Amino acid sequence: MITDYLKERQAQVDRAIEQLLPAKDVRPALLHEAMRYSVLNGGKRIRPILAIAAAEALGKTAEDVIKPAVSVELYHCSTLIHDDLPCMDDDDLRRGQPTCHIQYGEANAVLAGDALMIMAFELLAEFGNAQLGLELARAAGSRGVIAGQVEDLAAEGKAPNADLVEFIHLNKTAILIQASVRMGAIAAGANEKELDRLSRFGRKIGLAFQIADDILDETSSDDVLGKPTGSDTEQHKMTYPAVHGMDAAQTRVRALTFDAIAALMDLNRDTSALKSIAEFLMNRTF
Amino acid sequence: MITDYLKERQAQVDRAIEQLLPAKDVRPALLHEAMRYSVLNGGKRIRPILAIAAAEALGKTAEDVIKPAVSVELYHCSTLIHDDLPCMDDDDLRRGQPTCHIQYGEANAVLAGDALMIMAFELLAEFGNAQLGLELARAAGSRGVIAGQVEDLAAEGKAPNADLVEFIHLNKTAILIQASVRMGAIAAGANEKELDRLSRFGRKIGLAFQIADDILDETSSDDVLGKPTGSDTEQHKMTYPAVHGMDAAQTRVRALTFDAIAALMDLNRDTSALKSIAEFLMNRTF
Repeated sequence: MITDYLKERQAQVDRAIEQLLPAKDVRPALLHEAMRYSVLNGGKRIRPILAIAAAEALGKTAEDVIKPAVSVELYHCSTLIHDDLPCMDDDDLRRGQPTCHIQYGEANAVLAGDALMIMAFELLAEFGNAQLGLELARAAGSRGVIAGQVEDLAAEGKAPNADLVEFIHLNKTAILIQASVRMGAIAAGANEKELDRLSRFGRKIGLAFQIADDILDETSSDDVLGKPTGSDTEQHKMTYPAVHGMDAAQTRVRALTFDAIAALMDLNRDTSALKSIAEFLMNRTF
Repeated sequence: MITDYLKERQAQVDRAIEQLLPAKDVRPALLHEAMRYSVLNGGKRIRPILAIAAAEALGKTAEDVIKPAVSVELYHCSTLIHDDLPCMDDDDLRRGQPTCHIQYGEANAVLAGDALMIMAFELLAEFGNAQLGLELARAAGSRGVIAGQVEDLAAEGKAPNADLVEFIHLNKTAILIQASVRMGAIAAGANEKELDRLSRFGRKIGLAFQIADDILDETSSDDVLGKPTGSDTEQHKMTYPAVHGMDAAQTRVRALTFDAIAALMDLNRDTSALKSIAEFLMNRTF
């Protein structure tokens, strides 16, 4: 069962995060508390699990690539903290809990985000492969995740625009999910063909993931998502359903997921976990 | 003349930054403009110059280590952007110009800082030495520069305290100056003894640099510094002169500088530029 697989890997990632993050009593204690609060919050750990599943497909274990896997999650959490700030999306709730700046103040939230971002690169450097640092930096930087966030903020209130929503989805979400898969593969010593196929898989499910997110924001309830639903519409966010309609959005999620799975077909590897994750993400209701 | 040396290296670093930063018209243009605005602002480039001088002492050229050198400066600039934010030091001026958030808004300032931080690690990864990523991450992270900033903010308005001012100075400033020297040395292939001596040199001048900064904040004028002087006192910052008095501060700067120079004595290398920089920093009036 894929849900058992996900639960097991999630627990493994959580244990590693728990151990790798500085303890709450390490000076400066409040900062480390804010970092732990923002990361150890029951997150689904999709990105690190994808890194692990990619490595497993290439014959490695979760333990073998745990630092790159955790790195991606710490970076992801750092962007959530900064995105939630009053000057950005101004969100008070994240996974059903007060956001970092509500709990610890804005200055600590900016700095906890910075510290998690830096720690993501520290773990990669400890792993000892400069190529991984390059992957994360290029996915995360001003031509990656940050580009997506900048354009997302600038797009609020603008008329729906297909090119813009694609740019935002690719950069804000898909590029980091793709990087997660790639980093797991690189850490596991993937060859060129393997990296190519896994990259395509990652990009497709990354796009599917964000469109599914947009759909859930309109169709799910606050309780299930742990954050206010309908907030995208309220903030006039550039979403896929807003541009293309709900039916087209659902069709695209399915098409991307099938494309993703197809990309793995000619790999002579056990990619069953990756395929199951792709299907699970397509069908999720939270 | 050391001033000629500094000017030349500064120009070299500025040219490299100019080339390495994404152009203003690269999407998202406003973000890249904000990044360029915040970095290409006539900064003294002390940190990259120290990295270069350390590498030169070991027989390498500025060109050989330009990416690690620029990396340190980009990281430094990212901390200045975030430190200037309203929720932190709330500064409107930096080097005589409106700070990033005044010019481009808070959201862009947070994201420009994030992007520069990430680009610092990107350059190190491109250089291809994971050890350098580790150096920067450990110096910059929650047990380094960020620890210093957290405690500095928390210390505002508190009674002067010698241990606390030492902690803040070591972490907020000295650790990154030390890392700059170390990174130049590591990039140049330093042996253990060379790295040890250069580390000591970097730490001592790093502390001296911050104490000199505190002194200048009280004794210089706005025009010369390009930012409001006396602002430390006004904000009840934990400064060295506030804790130990002005005379002791000046004595300590001299003692640290001499210790720094002494640390280089048993290296069979041409460390004259490093020594001259240390003396220049001790005697600076801006």
